[in-house]
Amino acid sequence: VSDSERLARIALSRLTEPGDHRVANLVAELGAVRLFGLLRDERDPGGLLTEVATRLRGIDPGADLERAERLGIRYLIPGDPEWPTQVDDLIHCANLEDRGGPPLGLWVRGPGRLDRLDQSVAVVGSRHATTYGAEVARGLADTLVRADWSVVSGAAYGIDQAAHRGALSVEGATVAVLACGVDRAYPTAHRPLLDHLAQTSLVVAEVPPGCAPTRGRFLSRNRLIAALTRGTVVVEAAVRSGALNTATWATRLNRHLMGVPGPVTNAQSQGTHQLVRSGAATLVTQGSEVLEVVGDIGTHLVIPPRAPSTPRDRIGQRLQRVLDAVPVAQPAPVDSIATTAGLGLVEIRSSLSRLLTLGLVETSPAGWRLAPAARE
Amino acid sequence: VSDSERLARIALSRLTEPGDHRVANLVAELGAVRLFGLLRDERDPGGLLTEVATRLRGIDPGADLERAERLGIRYLIPGDPEWPTQVDDLIHCANLEDRGGPPLGLWVRGPGRLDRLDQSVAVVGSRHATTYGAEVARGLADTLVRADWSVVSGAAYGIDQAAHRGALSVEGATVAVLACGVDRAYPTAHRPLLDHLAQTSLVVAEVPPGCAPTRGRFLSRNRLIAALTRGTVVVEAAVRSGALNTATWATRLNRHLMGVPGPVTNAQSQGTHQLVRSGAATLVTQGSEVLEVVGDIGTHLVIPPRAPSTPRDRIGQRLQRVLDAVPVAQPAPVDSIATTAGLGLVEIRSSLSRLLTLGLVETSPAGWRLAPAARE
Repeated sequence: VSDSERLARIALSRLTEPGDHRVANLVAELGAVRLFGLLRDERDPGGLLTEVATRLRGIDPGADLERAERLGIRYLIPGDPEWPTQVDDLIHCANLEDRGGPPLGLWVRGPGRLDRLDQSVAVVGSRHATTYGAEVARGLADTLVRADWSVVSGAAYGIDQAAHRGALSVEGATVAVLACGVDRAYPTAHRPLLDHLAQTSLVVAEVPPGCAPTRGRFLSRNRLIAALTRGTVVVEAAVRSGALNTATWATRLNRHLMGVPGPVTNAQSQGTHQLVRSGAATLVTQGSEVLEVVGDIGTHLVIPPRAPSTPRDRIGQRLQRVLDAVPVAQPAPVDSIATTAGLGLVEIRSSLSRLLTLGLVETSPAGWRLAPAARE
Repeated sequence: VSDSERLARIALSRLTEPGDHRVANLVAELGAVRLFGLLRDERDPGGLLTEVATRLRGIDPGADLERAERLGIRYLIPGDPEWPTQVDDLIHCANLEDRGGPPLGLWVRGPGRLDRLDQSVAVVGSRHATTYGAEVARGLADTLVRADWSVVSGAAYGIDQAAHRGALSVEGATVAVLACGVDRAYPTAHRPLLDHLAQTSLVVAEVPPGCAPTRGRFLSRNRLIAALTRGTVVVEAAVRSGALNTATWATRLNRHLMGVPGPVTNAQSQGTHQLVRSGAATLVTQGSEVLEVVGDIGTHLVIPPRAPSTPRDRIGQRLQRVLDAVPVAQPAPVDSIATTAGLGLVEIRSSLSRLLTLGLVETSPAGWRLAPAARE
């Protein structure tokens, strides 16, 4: 990758907002170096000039890169060995939405490697998470990182924070993707969390260092979280939640989309339930089920939970038939049980005494009935 | 319908257990009158005689019917105007399982009409329901009966009871289908509930009056609940729950199957979550969604819940673009917002003052940032 390509992309990312589809199309057509050259010479490719004119003053990508490197921040572009090629899938989304184009490059802070995110899952959800939702997010992240998957989220309050912390608690890889520069902290209360992530794992952003978060940048950040990962799990989301925007991107990008259910009385689960109802998301209840969805065919298969087998399961069909004829509540005499079972008295008597030994029936002067163990 | 047909079916239902597939096949082949005649003459149709021999002594269907009528109980058989013809769908299940055959007839107590159950929904679930599950079942029943649907359940503890009570609380139609005779109460603590149902609505059973509940009869009762109704809603079910047996029957009978989610930490929701995960059941969170599933095409359509629109939704695209460029936290000066938005200073200034009037941004000496109302 040439230096001029890197510097041109830095310049373009200063000049435009993330994911701009006109920029994506022009870069595909002309290349980043040529596009920046045209703009710098005040030519007007694709009618972009009027919009970027005010930003052109004082553009100095070389100084940007130097300053970033001093802060321990690197700038990755397509073609770099560490480039996460999966985000290039966004090329197909460039014209879907204003903000749908692939990133020009990514600003990265931390010792992790961004190309390792081919095995990653996004865990996202409400900033106003319930304690239930936060606990579920924490547990999912724990299971995922133990299975050597990275957990990607947005470092927001609520579910995002719980997911990062769940991964960190078992020293797993967890990556924060920000709507502001990687040197900034939003919310500011998460400065220690973000510094810790930058020291042990990765903090990623599409906007250059120093940039403030805006609503537009949150939306483009969401598309990046979906694009970086193999699948997105929405833990809690009210009907108007940014997490649903990430979910839409996961679907557009043909990523796996999963939703964790919750009490139907919980407004924070309404959005997730809608995703499952509509068929957009698969219902998941634990990390192992997430792994089953995102893993390769035949890996991470989940054995559906089932109760331990009971003594009842271990008796033959003939004994089961007798047991099925024994009353649940009021005891019945042997001949009545024989009538119900449609079997002879001799067989019934020996079957009942065998069932008594197994603790499945109980007897009294009034007759026989099921023991509590056999009532389930 | 002839008296001899009715009496023959009463006799056969005394001689055999509900749903016996051999009986179903023999009735289809020979008719009930002929089959009973052969058994009474100690001929051996289909090898059935050995099993029913002990029960043949003392068979008196005429006396059975008379005694039942004195207790206010009627016996319905196919061909009666009140016969719920949908249960005849079980004819196709006769050979699926030991207990899969259609009922020979139904013992009914109460002023309701059984043929009205073409517009009914089963609400079933765990006997060990949580308060959450019971509250949800109650609410579902309430909504269903208000929309003139009947709620069918099994009068057990937990979800069943909550469903019946939810329907009764708004004087709706709710039907109990029992595993014992309609004159008996199981659990005995539900005697007042069952008497109330018999006075205001319906209590139904396949086994003759006086019969005790057995495990076998619970299983055949479950198939009847599924067969009587347009769909089954499972509210809470652990991984080994009788409600899952009803769910299996609903699927076999091509009825709608629905599951209500709950906290993933709740063992009583594990079975429901599995039903949804496997694709067997549709996730539902409220009665209106149940109605949408079971109703005829174009009726009971649910408008997906969404948050009320905000001032943000009501501004034009151009103003939205300015708003998207305003920082969320740290205020920014006008020129920085102009740069982010890619718009001229004049337009930005007038847009910001319009947004200020709308309460979407706030201003301070340091610049502009989003107002709390615009941060969602």
